[in-house]
Order: sequence, then structure tokens, then C-alpha cells
Amino acid sequence: MTDHLGPALAGTSPGTSPGVTAAAGFRASGVTAGLKASGSPDLALVVNDGPRQAAAAVFTTNRMVGAPVVWSRQVVSDGVVSAVVLNSGGANVSTGPEGFLDAHLTAERVATALGVSAGDVIVCSTGLIGERLPRENLLTGVDLAAAALAPDAGPQAARAIMTTDSVPKTAHVTVDTPDGSFTVGGMAKGAGMLAPAMATMLCVVTTDADVEARVLDAALRAATAVTFDRVDSDGCMSTSDTVTLLASGASGVAPSLDVLADAVLRVCASLARQLVADAEGASHDVAVHVVGATSQDAALAVARAVTRSNLFKAAIFGNDPNWGRVLAQVGTVPEAVAPFDPEAVDVSMNGVMVCQAARVHADRSDVDLASAREVHVVVDLHAGDASATVWSNDLTHDYVHENSAYST
Amino acid sequence: MTDHLGPALAGTSPGTSPGVTAAAGFRASGVTAGLKASGSPDLALVVNDGPRQAAAAVFTTNRMVGAPVVWSRQVVSDGVVSAVVLNSGGANVSTGPEGFLDAHLTAERVATALGVSAGDVIVCSTGLIGERLPRENLLTGVDLAAAALAPDAGPQAARAIMTTDSVPKTAHVTVDTPDGSFTVGGMAKGAGMLAPAMATMLCVVTTDADVEARVLDAALRAATAVTFDRVDSDGCMSTSDTVTLLASGASGVAPSLDVLADAVLRVCASLARQLVADAEGASHDVAVHVVGATSQDAALAVARAVTRSNLFKAAIFGNDPNWGRVLAQVGTVPEAVAPFDPEAVDVSMNGVMVCQAARVHADRSDVDLASAREVHVVVDLHAGDASATVWSNDLTHDYVHENSAYST
Repeated sequence: MTDHLGPALAGTSPGTSPGVTAAAGFRASGVTAGLKASGSPDLALVVNDGPRQAAAAVFTTNRMVGAPVVWSRQVVSDGVVSAVVLNSGGANVSTGPEGFLDAHLTAERVATALGVSAGDVIVCSTGLIGERLPRENLLTGVDLAAAALAPDAGPQAARAIMTTDSVPKTAHVTVDTPDGSFTVGGMAKGAGMLAPAMATMLCVVTTDADVEARVLDAALRAATAVTFDRVDSDGCMSTSDTVTLLASGASGVAPSLDVLADAVLRVCASLARQLVADAEGASHDVAVHVVGATSQDAALAVARAVTRSNLFKAAIFGNDPNWGRVLAQVGTVPEAVAPFDPEAVDVSMNGVMVCQAARVHADRSDVDLASAREVHVVVDLHAGDASATVWSNDLTHDYVHENSAYST
Repeated sequence: MTDHLGPALAGTSPGTSPGVTAAAGFRASGVTAGLKASGSPDLALVVNDGPRQAAAAVFTTNRMVGAPVVWSRQVVSDGVVSAVVLNSGGANVSTGPEGFLDAHLTAERVATALGVSAGDVIVCSTGLIGERLPRENLLTGVDLAAAALAPDAGPQAARAIMTTDSVPKTAHVTVDTPDGSFTVGGMAKGAGMLAPAMATMLCVVTTDADVEARVLDAALRAATAVTFDRVDSDGCMSTSDTVTLLASGASGVAPSLDVLADAVLRVCASLARQLVADAEGASHDVAVHVVGATSQDAALAVARAVTRSNLFKAAIFGNDPNWGRVLAQVGTVPEAVAPFDPEAVDVSMNGVMVCQAARVHADRSDVDLASAREVHVVVDLHAGDASATVWSNDLTHDYVHENSAYST
């Protein structure tokens, strides 16, 4: 089964990793700019000191995007990025021309502080939609962040981008090659709304590999397609999702695309898995593995149909192996999207085949959902050799509570 | 705005209507067959005494269907139906050849009791998936139901098909024409899972109009497309949804298709609105009206994107007019599906325009969500003249509780 998130945490030092400062050639900081009412850190800066300043980024596919996304798409288009500035405490979405100016001025202020071009500064914002950021706090915060830059401050940066996250997310891997070793590290935030509509997910990945922007772009797109894109359950993305990959070249090692892509994949997988583990109010992390599909797209469509179901997710919260709700969701996928014989479908939960050939099989009481946070559901379509896994969470009282009280 | 559910209850005597026995030429019953552990009524029978026995039905589009749907699709294919037998206490889905035999034997038993052909008896079942019905209880129950048939027992039938419904749903209208009056009445169940994946929704509509099966089919499809199909929020249907329309011809009145269709629409709209009002654990009924779309399909796609959002639905539960969550969902609809300028979108909640041209407008504190059960959200795309409304519910603690405990 193709599941990069299952074994994702191994060897990536989740939580204790320096994250964006694991790779050589980067400094970072995390400070309190006064954007959050709580007084918690809310502004992070990541700087690429080179010698190379190659970059790639992927952005939300949502048609409603915030000013930072509009700005940053333009910044990364030439493959050169000197710094990434990120704030929590406000998404800067639906804020009009003044909001765009806030993003622009933030990049200008970073540029002035670092002696780089504003056109090489990516801006990311996360928080409520429809409220202006306090401009003076933001710009003063940039000065503070620039002054606090340090080559070991990745953890502070990871903490400053948290919104409803309960823990910072960091990871890194070091890869030995015949020419020497290189490192890929990163940080992410986005606990709140992974299921069913991923709200703002921000991620910065850095590497000291010596590679061009087009190689970074290929490695990043390959990684996000099977990591962050497999933790949202209905393909929806927020107005602000941004994943950036920066290369400093400081290791002097120039890995092949395959070698780099594998390392980027491992870091992204670890970060994505950490997001699932910290989803707001969840009591279970749920992996839906679809096997025996005619294509990976077909497998994905079926997996997403299952993870989209509130009924299924509420049943998991109740530790109820309600495979009928799985089967009913599998049946909603059109035949043109996923050809299979409905009468042939098997469903297993945590290793117990509760449904074989679309009929009751093992006793549902044989399934133990209560004793572990991870739940694994396997749907075998018996139609081909392709597979895909989507991770989600259960639907809990706490999810409803936290998301009904978010803006108040 | 095209919203048949808003004014749906007017003139249809919801709750107090005799439902399927409002029209002449029908008898019904509701009895306790012992299918439910609770001992509540669980078997209903509706009989068309003619002189005509015309019928039409629409079924779930789910590829996983129960034995009753397989059986009943065949029954209605010739446009002749003598009776509908419905049970709660078990969906008879994923029950294999023995489950199909249960459905077949149920129809045979009805046929024997009434002196009609088993091939003219529709069977509907609702309840848990993957468990066999107790066959002897079922068949003995059919005999009880046949013995209890009465021309005024529509309310008992409506009560016997309830699962997690808190109240029976009935409605009827009588239409005066130059040739005399005719009546359309009906009953429905399906409180549990309207949002986001409508689980078993069963509905029987009867009329004493004197019309052919092909006219019934046209009237029924037109009605369900803008009523029951507009209360589920992501287009998913359960394994068992069945809506049947029977005509006895007992009034001797032969209305035109338009006149009949309007009456069927009013009854279906009332029943659909009653389903929304009784959705499990909901504290708000939420109408999302999309106007200014280039086509009705575009408007529908945008409305469904909004009503599918757990974040939006949890915010409504918290009486929080979080229009950012509306806007973010609107933005997930691909341009190919719904062309519009994201920067032009307005959002109003309960009459207050909180977002104009994708930017904050009125103060969100001006919106009162707390004082009424109904919430109206209007999304104006400013792209055309088409509109559509989808009804849903908020996402509450009680929804999670009831659906995490359903099978236990």
C-alpha cells in the first residue's frame, strides 16, 4: 500500500528537530509582535544566507486567496527567495487593497532589515479571515524578528506560527551520499481544520543541498501530492495554504532529483503526520487505505469519500466499527471515477475483516478501536492493483466545541 | 430565489395530515412486528385500491444498494404497483442472497394477504446495514399489517417507519380544478443523516388523480430534484433511499402534468422541510441561497460546497456569523463548474450583508443567529441570473453524540 504517512515519523526527530535551521545556511526567529490577543509568539522569519537562494512553493488551489498568496506567487515565480516571513493572529484574507499593502509593506520591511530585495520575500499569514492586521505591530515585529535571527532558532519559528496547534511541528533528515551529506528540515502549522476542509496550513522546508529551483519545484510537488494532499479529506484547501522549499547550497552536495525528492518527501510526510496527530479535538487518527483499485486516482476518490463522511467519523469517535457507513460512502463514488463491482468490496478495520464481498463477515465486536489512537481501515475493491491512503480524524464533541468557538 | 422548501409547510398540514390516506382509494396501517428492540411500531403497509394502480419511483444513486431497492426497481419498471410495504429496524443491506429472499418473501406475503401479484409490491427497509431481519417476525408482521389496513391509518403508517425521527412526517394538499378536486398526500422518514450524507430516506406519496405512470414519473422526478435532492449537502445518497408515487384514479380527475407536478412538489417540499427540521441533534435549519450564478448547476455546486463544510456548520451552532468560512468554501468550487469573479462575491446572513465584494462590510455583531432556528445565508456571485437553495443543519454536540452511539 502506498502510504507515506504511516511510517512518517521514523528518523525525522518530530517535535525535537531544529526544523528550518537543521540545514546549513539558514537562520530563523520567532517573536511576539502583538498580533495575537494572547501575547503568544506570532511572527516568524526564515532567512536563506546562501550561497544559493533557490526556491519553489505550492499554494492553495482555492479561488479565494489572501493578499499574502497573491504577493508570494509573484515572488517565487523567478525561483529566487531570500526569506520567508510568517505571522499567526490573522490571515489577511478579504482585506482589500489595504490588506495587500500590509503584505507588501511586510516584505519591504524584511528586505530593509536584511538588505535583500522585497521581491524575494515570501509572506504567509494565518488566522481569522476578514480582519485587518495591526500594521504597526506587524512591521515592528519584523524588526524584532530580524534582530532575533539565529542559526539554531528553528524551534522558536515553529512555535510562532502556531494558531490552534497544541505543539509545534518540526522534522529533519540528513542524507549521506558519495559526495557528502545534505540535510532537509522543516516546520508546519495547521492543527485546526484538517478534516474535512483543511484551513490554513503553512509549511517551510529548507535544505542545504545545492540544487536549482526547477529541481526543488519537482521534488516539492511530488512530495506534497502524497503527503499534505492526503490529509485533507475532501480536496478542499483554505484561502492561504502555502508550502515553501528553500535551498541554500551550503552543503556543497548536489543530489539527484530522486535522492532530494525522497528526503523532501520524508520531511513533508513527518510534518503531515504531525498535523493529523494534532487535529483539533480529535481522539483518533484514521487512515483509510484503498487497495485493489484500477488506478491511484480511483483509489484516492474512494478513500476521500470515506474520510469525508461525518457519520463514519462520528462512529470512530464512538469506537464503533460501523462498516456499513464505510460501504455506503464507497458506493457514492461514480463508476466512471472508480470502476469496481460493489458486490466484491471487502472492508477491514484494525486487521479484522468485518465485511467480505459486501457482506457481514467477522463479528464487529472483534474489532478493537478503543485501545489505540490510530485506526486503520482497509477497503479492497478487487478491481486492480492500485492503492492510496488518506488520513483523517474522528468527529468528536471537542471538534464541534473548538470550531464553534473559534472566532469568539 | 428558487427555494421550494422555504414556504414548504404552508397549507400542507404538516404532522397532522393523514398523509398517505389523504387521497381517496388508499388504505394503510402501521404495526409492531418485533423488528425493533424498543417494541415501537416498525412495519407499515400502503395499499392502492384503485381503480387505477399507476406508480413511479426514484431510488438512491448509491452503487451499494440493499435487497429492497434491487427488488423494487424491478417492481416499478412496468408502472404498476398495488402496495408498498416498509419496515424500520433493519436496512436489509449487505445481507446476501438470504437478505434478498427476505425482501422477496415479504412481497409474496403481502401479495397473498391482499390477493395481488408479488411483482406489484414495493419493499422498503431502513435501519442498520449488515444485519439480517428476523424473517418470521417480518412475515407475521405483514399479516398484522394487512389485517390493520384502514382508510384513515396514514398517521400510523408514518409512525411505523420512524427510526431516529422524533416525529412522524406527513403532508397533503387538495387541488381544485374545473373538473373537480384531487388530493396528493404523503409520508416520509429520515431524520438521522441528512447532513452531510443523507442516510435512508423513505417516502411514499399517494394521489387520487387519474393519471398514467409516465405522468407520475415526470411529476415525481421534477419534484424530488428540487426538494429531497436539495436537503442533502454533498449529493451522497444512502443505500436505500426510495420515493414512491402511487395514483389510484379514485377522484376521477385527470389533471395536466403541470397541475399534478405542482401538487406533488408541494407535498415533497413540505416533507423535505420536515426532515430538515427534525435532523438529528441539530439546533439550526440552515438555508444557503446562491444567487447571481451563471446556471442553476453552478449555483447548486456553490451552495453544496458551503453546506458541506463542518467548519461553517460548527460556527452556526455557535451562533457565529463566520462569513470567512462561507467564502473559503465558495472558493473551492472550480471555475469550470461555476464561473464567477472571487473578488465580487457578497455574503449576507439573516439579512445583514457581512461581506461585500469579498471584503468585510457590516459588523458581524449585527447578525442575530441565536433567536431563531432558521438561518438564511445568501451568497451573491454577481455572475448571472441563476439561483439555487440547499438546506442543511448545523453541526452540534448532539449530532456527534447520536451518531457515535447509533449502532450500540
